[in-house]
Amino acid sequence: MAADAPTVPPEFDQRLRELLRSDVEFIQLIEDDLISAGGKRVRPRLALLASEALGGVPHALELALAVELLHSATLLHDDLVDDAETRRGREAAFRKYGNAVSVLSGDYLLSRVLFLLAETGRVELVHLFAEAARLLAEGEVLQFQAAAYREYSEAQYYRIIESKTAALMRAATEGAALLGDAPRPLREALAAYGGAYGLAFQMRDDYLDLMGEEARLGKPVGGDVREGKVTLITLWLLEAYPDEVEPILLRRGREPGDVERLRGLAESSGVAARVVAAIEERVEEARRSLAALPEGSARAALEGLALAELERLQ
Amino acid sequence: MAADAPTVPPEFDQRLRELLRSDVEFIQLIEDDLISAGGKRVRPRLALLASEALGGVPHALELALAVELLHSATLLHDDLVDDAETRRGREAAFRKYGNAVSVLSGDYLLSRVLFLLAETGRVELVHLFAEAARLLAEGEVLQFQAAAYREYSEAQYYRIIESKTAALMRAATEGAALLGDAPRPLREALAAYGGAYGLAFQMRDDYLDLMGEEARLGKPVGGDVREGKVTLITLWLLEAYPDEVEPILLRRGREPGDVERLRGLAESSGVAARVVAAIEERVEEARRSLAALPEGSARAALEGLALAELERLQ
Repeated sequence: MAADAPTVPPEFDQRLRELLRSDVEFIQLIEDDLISAGGKRVRPRLALLASEALGGVPHALELALAVELLHSATLLHDDLVDDAETRRGREAAFRKYGNAVSVLSGDYLLSRVLFLLAETGRVELVHLFAEAARLLAEGEVLQFQAAAYREYSEAQYYRIIESKTAALMRAATEGAALLGDAPRPLREALAAYGGAYGLAFQMRDDYLDLMGEEARLGKPVGGDVREGKVTLITLWLLEAYPDEVEPILLRRGREPGDVERLRGLAESSGVAARVVAAIEERVEEARRSLAALPEGSARAALEGLALAELERLQ
Repeated sequence: MAADAPTVPPEFDQRLRELLRSDVEFIQLIEDDLISAGGKRVRPRLALLASEALGGVPHALELALAVELLHSATLLHDDLVDDAETRRGREAAFRKYGNAVSVLSGDYLLSRVLFLLAETGRVELVHLFAEAARLLAEGEVLQFQAAAYREYSEAQYYRIIESKTAALMRAATEGAALLGDAPRPLREALAAYGGAYGLAFQMRDDYLDLMGEEARLGKPVGGDVREGKVTLITLWLLEAYPDEVEPILLRRGREPGDVERLRGLAESSGVAARVVAAIEERVEEARRSLAALPEGSARAALEGLALAELERLQ
C-alpha cells in the first residue's frame, strides 16, 4: 500500500542499526531480522510528525527510536503469546531461535529504550514511558486473561486496546510535545490525537482481521477468532446472535465455514457497518484534536495518517 | 542460613507491594508470588548498605527497589530459558500461569523500574541502568548461545557472569554513589566492590550447583550440567580429563553416577580447591575496594556480605 511507504528519514534506520549492534551473535541475528523486516514505522512517524508540527523539538529522533524499540520488544515478547504465523511478513523470530532468545533479545531492545530516554536528558520523558510501558504490559496480559476466562465486554475491549496500542501512540505524540516544552493546549491536543489515532488503528486492524481480504492482509482471516480474542465485531455478533455465534467462538472457528459464517452475519446484520462507524468516530476525534496545532504539512500528514485508517477499510 | 536473614527495612516490602499492585488479576497473582517468595534481597541490600556507607543518599530506597525489580523481571524471563524446577524455593511462576503471562508480568516489573528511575530525578541513573540492563540481556543470551554452540572458554565464562550477575550488583553500589554525588574515588571503590562481589557471588553459586549439598541448596545438584551450562569447575575438569568429562557434559549428566563422578574428580584432582581459591581472590578484591570508604557499620556489613560467600563454601 502506497500509504504505508516509509516516511522516516534515512537517519532513523542508520541509528537503529547502530543501537542494535551487539557482538553476541544470537542477539544480532534477531535484531538483523527486525531491521530487515522493516515494518510500517507507524509509531516513529507519529513522533517525528508531532515534532515537525511543533516546528521541530530536541531529540525527536531518540523519541522516534524509543517508541519503535519498545513496540518491537513487545512483538518479540508477544510472539510467545499468540504463536503468530507471520509477523511483519517474516517468520516469527522465535521459530528460528527459540523462545528464550526472543524474550532476552526483547529485553536487549528495552535496555536500548532506557539508553535513548537517558540521551534525551529528560526525566519527565522517562515518567511518560514508564506509564506507557505499564499500560502496554497490562493490556497484553488483560487480553490473555480475557481469553482464558472468556470475560468479554465492550468496556474491556476498549480498555485492552487503549492499553496495548493507544497508550504507546499517545506517548509518541505527547512525548514530542514534552521534549519541545510545548504549551499545555498543544500537548493535550497531541496526546488526544495519539490516543484517538491509536484506537482507530487497532480497531481497523481488528476489523480487517475478520472482514479483510487475505491477499491484502498477507495472512489468513479469522486469526483473532482462532486465538480466542473477542473484538468489537465478534462481541456485537455475540450479543445479536448468541445461539449461533457463541459455539463458533467457543470452538475458536475450527469448523469449516465458521469464519465465513461470521463474516456473512456481520455483513447482513449491519454489525460490520456499525464497527466501521465506530472507527470513523475515532478518526474524526483524532482530526478534531489537530485543530489546536499550527496549520502546515506536518499537521496535514497527521490528518492523512488518520484518514488512511478509513481508506484501508474500503 | 542466618547470614541470609533479610536486612532490608520494612519500608522496602511495603513499597514493593504498592509498586506491584495491578488491577489485572493475572499480573497480581504473579507479583504476589514474587513478594511472598521473598528471596535474599541481596541486590537491594547492596544498594542500601552502599548508601549507608556514604552517610545516606537521596532515593536510596528507589534504587534498592529498582535493582530488585530488574532482577525479578530477569528471573521471570529466565524461567523460560532454563526451565528451572524451583526458583526461590517456589514453583516457577510460568508453570502455573503459562509462559506468556510470565514474560508480560516481567515486562510490567520493568515498567516499574522505569518509574522508579524517573522518581529519582537523575537521568544519569537511567544511563547506568541502561548499561546494566544491556549487559544483563547480553549475558543471558551469551550463556544460551555458548550452550547451543558448545563454545566454552574461561574468558567466555567470566564474560557471562560479569554480564548476567556482576553488572547489576555494580549498578546497585555505584548507583548509590551516583545518587549521593560521591567523589570519584568513592564511586570507583563502590563500583569495584559491587563488580567483584558479583563475580564471587555467581562463582560461589556455580560452585555449589555441582559441589554443594542438596539439603542446603534446596534443589538437586548438577543443574547446570543438565542444562548444558559449563562453569569454571566443569571447564577446568574438561581441560584436565577431556576423554572422561566431555562425554558426560555432552550427554548432560543423564547417566546414573555422572554427577557424582564429576564431583569426585573435582575433589581428587584439586580442581574444586582451585575454584575455591579463585572465589577467594574475588572476595579479597571486594574487601580491598572497601578501604576507600569511611569505616563504620555499613562498610563492615559490606565486608561481611563478601566473606559470607566464602562461608557458604564450607
